[in-house]
Amino acid sequence: MASENVVIRAARPGDCEEILRMIKELAVYEKMPEKATLTEEALRDDAFGDQPYYRALVAEVGSNLTDRTKLIGYAMYYFCYCPWLGRGIYLEDFYVEPAHRGRGIGTSIMKEVAKIGVKHRCNKMQWVCLNWNDVAIKFYKKHGGKDVTVEENWHLFRMDQQELTAFARE
Amino acid sequence: MASENVVIRAARPGDCEEILRMIKELAVYEKMPEKATLTEEALRDDAFGDQPYYRALVAEVGSNLTDRTKLIGYAMYYFCYCPWLGRGIYLEDFYVEPAHRGRGIGTSIMKEVAKIGVKHRCNKMQWVCLNWNDVAIKFYKKHGGKDVTVEENWHLFRMDQQELTAFARE
Repeated sequence: MASENVVIRAARPGDCEEILRMIKELAVYEKMPEKATLTEEALRDDAFGDQPYYRALVAEVGSNLTDRTKLIGYAMYYFCYCPWLGRGIYLEDFYVEPAHRGRGIGTSIMKEVAKIGVKHRCNKMQWVCLNWNDVAIKFYKKHGGKDVTVEENWHLFRMDQQELTAFARE
Repeated sequence: MASENVVIRAARPGDCEEILRMIKELAVYEKMPEKATLTEEALRDDAFGDQPYYRALVAEVGSNLTDRTKLIGYAMYYFCYCPWLGRGIYLEDFYVEPAHRGRGIGTSIMKEVAKIGVKHRCNKMQWVCLNWNDVAIKFYKKHGGKDVTVEENWHLFRMDQQELTAFARE
């Protein structure tokens, strides 16, 4: 429960249309709308098919008068692993619609992911953040997160699809 | 098949004792042996229990004469996810025993992980590398990897167990 009429709950297959809408909203906000190419079908299959590739939480606003509900935020996460420490939880994007910000809903969503991590006996939570995003960095540090790229020299590397396919075929 | 008598295959529960031995070898090599606190039981449960938190490959040396085999390398991986692109594969540590280096076994192990990624229709492979590890960075770049911390300003953040537990309880 993030706020009087906001409930944070596990996503269901029927939520994927609205989750995709918010993913695209966030991509516009981040000025990279062309990068959000995922489809509703892929989102549904990847979380609710035979093998879950990610899991999601949604923030839902309910109204007792009309019995209509609406999603106003989401988080995606998955489990990660460390050969020294074991289980970890990885927080992928989390988002709250602009009109609903400033009420602690984002913190509540992140905290729910942390609770799931603790429940699964995870030894760490990880995520990435853009180096210039001072507001987010301040928020993360306030809650005990640390920038391990700066403190421990860990850099993130990536092969995109083209390079991955080429490397696999070499 | 990495080399004449080396086979790279999916790990089995009975491999966990040897995988743990190699995890500890790698931790010594990295001058942080005290950090490798995971147990064989946890390694087995976390890959082969009800919910796989990671998956592993091993490199096995076989001998037809004695029918005895020995593990000389391993990789751990799991699936990750991106709200824009969908499925990805995350390469956790991979390791080859010092006596068996220089024969391309490490490359073969990494390539097997890439192949699994392609098979699962992953759009990227990710991993981390220490900024001062020039040999590894050169190797990764040669094969199409890029340092997205430098090129796209992504920094890795982490909450360790103490902070995670505190945040979840706040």
